Amino acid sequence: MASTLSFTKGHGTGNDFVLFSDPDGQEALDPGQIAALCDRHFGIGADGVIRAVRSAHLDAGAAVLAEDPAAEWFMDYHNADGSVAEMCGNGIRVFLHYLLESGLVELAPGEQLAIGTRAGVRMVGYDPLGYVVDLGRWSLDERETLVRVKGLPVARPGIGIDVGNPHIVVAVADAAELDGAELEYVPQLDPVPPHGANVELVVPGEPLIADGVARIRMRVHERGSGETLSCGTGTAAAALAFRHWAGAAAPNDWRVEVPGGVLGVRMVPGADGEHVVLAGPATLVYSGTITLA
Amino acid sequence: MASTLSFTKGHGTGNDFVLFSDPDGQEALDPGQIAALCDRHFGIGADGVIRAVRSAHLDAGAAVLAEDPAAEWFMDYHNADGSVAEMCGNGIRVFLHYLLESGLVELAPGEQLAIGTRAGVRMVGYDPLGYVVDLGRWSLDERETLVRVKGLPVARPGIGIDVGNPHIVVAVADAAELDGAELEYVPQLDPVPPHGANVELVVPGEPLIADGVARIRMRVHERGSGETLSCGTGTAAAALAFRHWAGAAAPNDWRVEVPGGVLGVRMVPGADGEHVVLAGPATLVYSGTITLA
Repeated sequence: MASTLSFTKGHGTGNDFVLFSDPDGQEALDPGQIAALCDRHFGIGADGVIRAVRSAHLDAGAAVLAEDPAAEWFMDYHNADGSVAEMCGNGIRVFLHYLLESGLVELAPGEQLAIGTRAGVRMVGYDPLGYVVDLGRWSLDERETLVRVKGLPVARPGIGIDVGNPHIVVAVADAAELDGAELEYVPQLDPVPPHGANVELVVPGEPLIADGVARIRMRVHERGSGETLSCGTGTAAAALAFRHWAGAAAPNDWRVEVPGGVLGVRMVPGADGEHVVLAGPATLVYSGTITLA
Repeated sequence: MASTLSFTKGHGTGNDFVLFSDPDGQEALDPGQIAALCDRHFGIGADGVIRAVRSAHLDAGAAVLAEDPAAEWFMDYHNADGSVAEMCGNGIRVFLHYLLESGLVELAPGEQLAIGTRAGVRMVGYDPLGYVVDLGRWSLDERETLVRVKGLPVARPGIGIDVGNPHIVVAVADAAELDGAELEYVPQLDPVPPHGANVELVVPGEPLIADGVARIRMRVHERGSGETLSCGTGTAAAALAFRHWAGAAAPNDWRVEVPGGVLGVRMVPGADGEHVVLAGPATLVYSGTITLA
């Protein structure tokens, strides 16, 4: 039976999402419906679909509520091809904006809200400069991966960073090389990571560090999506990799320029080890209704 | 001052549009607003914006009403970059669907409606199989243009067809060559047409003619847009070019497969010479509201 879906379209630095609310978990979409919604010519068009559902009304919500009973809302995220994704650093900031705008939650600036995701509970908040998410702990894989990107003169070594999802970060020679990379083609990785990886190409700002903040510029190829305007977890991975290369003198505040805008990354101490925090804009663009097939 | 725009998103064979109604001509958008609406990540996303405005309330409407006083509604069409376009063969079919769905016009199947465009009055209608537009007279330019397309082994000659807008149609060797063309790159034309041209690559069906209908497959690069899923006037140009090559035995009914679907093209006699008629689906996908900057 055809039914009508009320939705909101939003984006964080150009990484865009169809959001809708389904508090009682009665409107789960199937992968075909999600892919149809995300089609940029025949549907609404988006990088992914985010359903706001109470954790209590979702199988995946049980683990989240066990971790933190305050995680009332779950970010049920699917990629544009209908597949499930654990986390999305831009998506969860847009999700918070949507929850606030919809009146589903109340939160004062500077306060923290627990959100359920398939990667576990994530703490989010906002301040006058943007929406903030604690991406949690991260890990470094020092084994070198050789990365071959179309448009680059040579294969370059990349470093593995896991921020809930896997990334390979590659420093390229200069801005011209960054701009010349043909990231619509899938980069070739050697060895091939078991679950694949997003690939981030980065160059330092000139200077790298100004006023205590390190600046880098990044482009990204996302697994299964191609080049995107932004990748939240990718900016965190890029900053972490560059800090590793820069050594002890590097600051913990990073400003990452992506094709779709600018994101802030901060490394902060946590009880369970260092966390990485992502901050930046989250915009709701319009609302609409669509008949589902 | 920020104002709210109610719109409908629609497409014809994947060529997609933001449509809104402004009967009294009080909500013209500026090029920057149009480009922002058409952005596929930061806005709504579309190949163009179509405003439904009464011809009497638009400067360009005077000529249209002089040509046919029945042309009450004007299709005010802008490309995704904010520039004005005279006509759009897919757009005008979606426009008719929108006028009918909005209750702005009433029309029985098989009846004709006069629509104002910057290329003059166009007659549109619909039947159970789709939405139909008479694109009017056309012209052939037999002077050869050499067309160099990235991904093709050699430069190939193209033929010039004007269907209200200029096209260069190129027959390629086979389906593999059609599929291999990298049409996201601008084809190089020699000589360069004074106003540029859309470039259509075509291959015949196997067989070309079946049940009195000729079948071709086409891909297109549109001036200023790159490769698109469909181009209505381009399918008409491709069918006209192929009929020219096929000679006297060729039929006047053509079926053109484009990446976004299938369109029908028919050549019909008119009092002022032969006309070319385009038929195909027109779909309204969803409606929404957006705050204009």
